[in-house]
Amino acid sequence: MSSQAAKRVLVVAGLGNGSGTGAATARLFAKNGYSVALVARGAKAVDNLASEINSQGGHATSFALPSYSHEDITSAWSSIHARFPKPEYAIRAAVFNVGYGVWKPFLEITPQEVQDCLQTNVAAAFSFSRGAILAFKDNKELEEPTGKRGTLIFTGATAATRGNVVTSAFAAGKFGVRALSQSLAKEFGKENIHVAHSIIDGVILVDPKADKVASQDTRLKPESIASSYLYLVNQDRSAWTWELDLRPAHEKW
Amino acid sequence: MSSQAAKRVLVVAGLGNGSGTGAATARLFAKNGYSVALVARGAKAVDNLASEINSQGGHATSFALPSYSHEDITSAWSSIHARFPKPEYAIRAAVFNVGYGVWKPFLEITPQEVQDCLQTNVAAAFSFSRGAILAFKDNKELEEPTGKRGTLIFTGATAATRGNVVTSAFAAGKFGVRALSQSLAKEFGKENIHVAHSIIDGVILVDPKADKVASQDTRLKPESIASSYLYLVNQDRSAWTWELDLRPAHEKW
Amino acid sequence: MSSQAAKRVLVVAGLGNGSGTGAATARLFAKNGYSVALVARGAKAVDNLASEINSQGGHATSFALPSYSHEDITSAWSSIHARFPKPEYAIRAAVFNVGYGVWKPFLEITPQEVQDCLQTNVAAAFSFSRGAILAFKDNKELEEPTGKRGTLIFTGATAATRGNVVTSAFAAGKFGVRALSQSLAKEFGKENIHVAHSIIDGVILVDPKADKVASQDTRLKPESIASSYLYLVNQDRSAWTWELDLRPAHEKW
Amino acid sequence: MSSQAAKRVLVVAGLGNGSGTGAATARLFAKNGYSVALVARGAKAVDNLASEINSQGGHATSFALPSYSHEDITSAWSSIHARFPKPEYAIRAAVFNVGYGVWKPFLEITPQEVQDCLQTNVAAAFSFSRGAILAFKDNKELEEPTGKRGTLIFTGATAATRGNVVTSAFAAGKFGVRALSQSLAKEFGKENIHVAHSIIDGVILVDPKADKVASQDTRLKPESIASSYLYLVNQDRSAWTWELDLRPAHEKW
Repeated sequence: MSSQAAKRVLVVAGLGNGSGTGAATARLFAKNGYSVALVARGAKAVDNLASEINSQGGHATSFALPSYSHEDITSAWSSIHARFPKPEYAIRAAVFNVGYGVWKPFLEITPQEVQDCLQTNVAAAFSFSRGAILAFKDNKELEEPTGKRGTLIFTGATAATRGNVVTSAFAAGKFGVRALSQSLAKEFGKENIHVAHSIIDGVILVDPKADKVASQDTRLKPESIASSYLYLVNQDRSAWTWELDLRPAHEKW
Repeated sequence: MSSQAAKRVLVVAGLGNGSGTGAATARLFAKNGYSVALVARGAKAVDNLASEINSQGGHATSFALPSYSHEDITSAWSSIHARFPKPEYAIRAAVFNVGYGVWKPFLEITPQEVQDCLQTNVAAAFSFSRGAILAFKDNKELEEPTGKRGTLIFTGATAATRGNVVTSAFAAGKFGVRALSQSLAKEFGKENIHVAHSIIDGVILVDPKADKVASQDTRLKPESIASSYLYLVNQDRSAWTWELDLRPAHEKW
Repeated sequence: MSSQAAKRVLVVAGLGNGSGTGAATARLFAKNGYSVALVARGAKAVDNLASEINSQGGHATSFALPSYSHEDITSAWSSIHARFPKPEYAIRAAVFNVGYGVWKPFLEITPQEVQDCLQTNVAAAFSFSRGAILAFKDNKELEEPTGKRGTLIFTGATAATRGNVVTSAFAAGKFGVRALSQSLAKEFGKENIHVAHSIIDGVILVDPKADKVASQDTRLKPESIASSYLYLVNQDRSAWTWELDLRPAHEKW
Repeated sequence: MSSQAAKRVLVVAGLGNGSGTGAATARLFAKNGYSVALVARGAKAVDNLASEINSQGGHATSFALPSYSHEDITSAWSSIHARFPKPEYAIRAAVFNVGYGVWKPFLEITPQEVQDCLQTNVAAAFSFSRGAILAFKDNKELEEPTGKRGTLIFTGATAATRGNVVTSAFAAGKFGVRALSQSLAKEFGKENIHVAHSIIDGVILVDPKADKVASQDTRLKPESIASSYLYLVNQDRSAWTWELDLRPAHEKW
């Protein structure tokens, strides 16, 4: 069985309550034939999402994490490889959708919150990226028709490009992830590994019932963000994108 | 006949010798059901492209321009409206792919070359954009499923974000277009008109036979750029992109 | 007479009504021992400023321009060289403070206004820069203690880095000047010619009597901008600045 | 004794071996009448620098740190307040010159090195900034003639704006500091506290004897960087700078 025929796997980390970007990405890739590895804290939400995808004919496995420490993330990657072994499977896409933020005046931010922003956003991104890059390098054959070994996508935010009042800790974390993504894009492009960074510049519609003022004019639909991730994964290596911004039509920016 | 059933029209300006981004965009949109209005200087190249598209079952009309002056561009838009009248047609996409550059040490650049860079890149972009925005505003119904009136895309370049030795005049032009595109994106987003700017960060593969070192590792395929434009046009208004970069996998940046 | 002993000359273009950045720069450099060449449209304002500086012990000459065309700017540089000949004088600093803007919804901007924004902001900057670079290259000796041949400064604006609603034409011009300044900085740095670009991110206090809400919390004082220009000119070539932003303490950005 | 007559204090953190930016800043501010608080790991280097400054008529006190942990930095600020009490002294300037970097291919970077980059660059910057902002807020009178409570400067790097091959961890740290500095600038500007970020875009001349190819064409002199910091501190609040880049004349960028 050649790896061309291997079943493609998406690994997505960061699933929130199952109604946001990570979950929408998992659903969309599952519909497009990917086996999906779901990585998140909170076993219940991740199990529910796996069940939902599987009940609709998809193929998802949950990998609940105790924390986003280097050890736990590395251990999750081992479990993913065990569950999706070569040559039957090939991990071709990975999405780091983990984020943690505090929005407070600077003097109210505690040292622990600074730590949490740096660990959950940046250090965890380094650990997850390591697993993804190693998995992609292990894909000896380039995927057709894209000519790539794999695609790693980071979910960024407005705060990845602009610090602002009350965002000092969150922005420090998101800037850090952006730096990582650009460094990886430059280092691994020549190995035909694609690294991209999205800037979510607006509010995501997570709970349509609770969000009274929401409309597709003013809120990002998780499904639309997921579509952009599928597009990025499908870009071929002659013209791929490091960074794109995404915002609702009526967003003021 | 409701405008939902109107045949969609793409207007693309700037076609070079028929082997680059503009032409690839025209071909791809024609294959996807758009009627295509081809706007360029050089009647022969544009007529050849129209013939080619029509001979393959597409629907293209050429609008050769004497120059990229405001008058000539405005006149072309009138001809386009006459050829693709409402309610049978609705202009839903426009691509400004016109560019003119000189690459010389600053002191060798003539005042005329500065003028040409400003007129062909920037002033022409203003004139073309005016036609596109007016056409989109005239689309009373939003297109489904994107929820947009129309999409205007500018082909940018590395020089749109960085001035460099020998690029002073070209960069001045490309920076100017980028400013225009961002201003339009902010002004017309709330009218559900989508404006985007691509940064082509590398060399486009225009002539595969002449370009000995070319490969999809090191050159942008026009067809792949065209795919990104089709993706932008298909983005819905809940999560659309102003700017994306495109480069080959092995590009150093 | 060695050129080290030559009297230093500042050339400043763009003086408005004599109460803004250009005029403050002329006054400050005159106080610091520079002969000052005043270049502007509007003979009366420029003559008044020259008289004022000369009456206070400074040394200023006015060079009124009929327009900012290439011919008129080039002719002004010839007159400046004739008035400040080597080896008695050495032109060591030049400030391009010319700007023209319209703030209108895109569809209300006329083709002539687009032209004016491109000509007065960008094309004139190219012409003025040519004169400045040629003058600096002609300084055979490096100035001490800076180790530079000369310094060329452009007055930029918020609109040089961000397009916005109602700023499309102005931003296109200001982006263009920024591109030029960066290209020149990279091309001529190795000849020890320093090129800098300031971003004036706020409202300048031009008329303290008319500007009721003005304070140094919310308005840029022209004298403070001028101080930054003198600092840039005094930077030595081991650590010089291409770009700095300037804004009032209470500006929201 | 009014605080206008209070002796001004500079606090500078990060002194390397005593020959770089931090030390040059301490020396320059001491010569300009500031009492200087020297904060660094490595008691010997910091004591030597204090002795040198004091022997030349300056006024310096060393505050050696066991580490850049939040506790140690906070404790240093307490000691500084005890040593320089109000109303005799007023802390008016603070420079965060601490940096730690690894330059390695991504897969060779250890989790501990990622931690070190985040802690020493970013978390320490948060802790130091807290001390500086609190000290400045406690300056009831604005300093004349600048009209400011105090100035906080961060030493940044090229890696603060661009990730690159082998800089992923360092860039993540430096991006984070840049985010912090911009957030603070926006939050505390309205309290007349000035926060600035410099981008050191080149190699600093730390050891003239060892650096054979060094010249002021190709290396940043620490004294020149220090001059830019003094200029920033002297900017008045009507026109101050958040960010400036500094590079040698012949740097390729």
